[in-house]
Amino acid sequence: MGATKAGRERATIIDVARAAGVSRQTVSNVLNRPEIVASATRARVEDEIARLGFAPHVAAQQLRRRRASAYGFEVNPSGVGRMGHVLDGFLVELTTTAPGHQSHLVTFAADHDDVLAGYRHLLGTGLVDGFVLGDTRHGDPRPAWLLEAGVPFVAFGRIWDSPELDRWVDVDGRAGMRMAVEHLLAEGYGTVGFLGWPQGSPVGDDRRQGWLDGLARSGLADPALVEESVQDLDRATYAADRLLQRMGGSGAILCVSDMLALGAVRAVRAAGLQPGADIGVVGMDDSDIAEALALSSLRQPLREASLAAWRILQGAAQGGQPALLAPTLIIRNSSIRSQEKE
Amino acid sequence: MGATKAGRERATIIDVARAAGVSRQTVSNVLNRPEIVASATRARVEDEIARLGFAPHVAAQQLRRRRASAYGFEVNPSGVGRMGHVLDGFLVELTTTAPGHQSHLVTFAADHDDVLAGYRHLLGTGLVDGFVLGDTRHGDPRPAWLLEAGVPFVAFGRIWDSPELDRWVDVDGRAGMRMAVEHLLAEGYGTVGFLGWPQGSPVGDDRRQGWLDGLARSGLADPALVEESVQDLDRATYAADRLLQRMGGSGAILCVSDMLALGAVRAVRAAGLQPGADIGVVGMDDSDIAEALALSSLRQPLREASLAAWRILQGAAQGGQPALLAPTLIIRNSSIRSQEKE
Repeated sequence: MGATKAGRERATIIDVARAAGVSRQTVSNVLNRPEIVASATRARVEDEIARLGFAPHVAAQQLRRRRASAYGFEVNPSGVGRMGHVLDGFLVELTTTAPGHQSHLVTFAADHDDVLAGYRHLLGTGLVDGFVLGDTRHGDPRPAWLLEAGVPFVAFGRIWDSPELDRWVDVDGRAGMRMAVEHLLAEGYGTVGFLGWPQGSPVGDDRRQGWLDGLARSGLADPALVEESVQDLDRATYAADRLLQRMGGSGAILCVSDMLALGAVRAVRAAGLQPGADIGVVGMDDSDIAEALALSSLRQPLREASLAAWRILQGAAQGGQPALLAPTLIIRNSSIRSQEKE
Repeated sequence: MGATKAGRERATIIDVARAAGVSRQTVSNVLNRPEIVASATRARVEDEIARLGFAPHVAAQQLRRRRASAYGFEVNPSGVGRMGHVLDGFLVELTTTAPGHQSHLVTFAADHDDVLAGYRHLLGTGLVDGFVLGDTRHGDPRPAWLLEAGVPFVAFGRIWDSPELDRWVDVDGRAGMRMAVEHLLAEGYGTVGFLGWPQGSPVGDDRRQGWLDGLARSGLADPALVEESVQDLDRATYAADRLLQRMGGSGAILCVSDMLALGAVRAVRAAGLQPGADIGVVGMDDSDIAEALALSSLRQPLREASLAAWRILQGAAQGGQPALLAPTLIIRNSSIRSQEKE
């Protein structure tokens, strides 16, 4: 407060330049654009800055002062067999669609004991201006907390418990499932069963509703033609086998994810039937698995979702405009009845 | 320089606190730990900071001053069918193994016209202290440039053109391929052909050498038993079919990647043969594809690689210790001759 000339004179940028044998511009470059200064020069200047105590407070701030926006993005260990990688793909698209190369994503690890801890911590580092939330769910404390703290954010996934919060972008799984049912019935599969996640997950329940919508439109609705499995290949295979038996070995199986669809493909083959020609199978996420197995699947438009997310973040002050995007049905052999054999 | 009392008195933190009706601590919190201040209060304080012109320079710096390390990580659009996602997986592992939650990754998009442009730009934003390089290759200008600029970095992948640069961690694909050959010969496949990438990629050439090493140890070396394909499923299938014909419908096909191994599986099936029982197939990366198709594959130890990368970054001043890690062979049905049918 009110700096005086008491004590030793404060070192200036000129003192540092003289001591390091460089120009004042070079010292400024070391502070502001260190990347353009040769390493040896940079080290010498930084040494003199430290030795002379040149406005060390301000200098340190200069060195680590952000000149671009950045948003935190929580990641989870992938683990083998997670399959899908939708959030990984979304992070890549967010990065490549960042406006003007002046916005970046900062990854941080989930804290499973305290979901907000990682967010609180990252804000405290000064690294980010806000967050991109993935994997929204019932009872998610993050949106309200960020709103209260005045921290900008956008969610990839609806904010299910707070419909009034409109800072999200999502893919309309319900519409996608409806589209898939219509495709399967048009292909001539007599009925469509559903292989879904256990009830209670907002995304899974929404997709299941799309299956029911599709059947209802055709007057075929049979809400009992459903089996459940968690996201696990062996369990999905067992569940698909049960469903297949109840369907009497004909019809199609619409699956909430590619992982479950892979289980369905296995169950169909184990029953001596062929996916597509005998039993239709459709998954969701259009993962590598889907392409590898010629599995029809609903593709999430991750690039469009990323662009919408940036628009919401940039217009956050005026309130975002939520975006519900349609997935695309990628039709492959697993849902074509009359197919040419390779 | 040498601030005087000329002109209007400079506003102090006390003036801001009084005008906003909050304590001095609250103003300090808004500047340094904004996440703990209620949004309405924060907005009021920020308004007063702006209105009174309170050390706006320093205040702005405080708001965006980094208090954690961060490293840039270049990402490429994933695209459908890229398969593998090894770099995505590495980014996730780097994030979850970051030491003390005080280091983060900042993603940025590749610039294909000027490979250094993205790096130069990100340094200029003040967002990062250094970089983690992926996808090292021949003629890669990044390591030398970063070294010259004095910017800390670690590479995931050897710095092929500059063996003296030891700031890298890599997976020993050559040793992995040798191990796979030994496994295939021990399983009783009479010979092992190689489905590789076109010559000239350091990673692909290294893996091919491992195949030759493995054959040489058994006195079986037949360097002619090789076909090449780029990372494309259809081309891989054609190349595998050619190799299969030359092998006379017996033996095993060792593949440089899971994508090429998927092509091999297709070619084997199209020939009316069964992967594993008739023709052994082994890939590399242990991708979702491998698990879905019961394909044997070499798994890269991404978690260990991440831990090694952080050790190198943290010890960068003393020179890192390069780490060449062994992959693990995950054996599934595609390389077991006498298998139980499911």
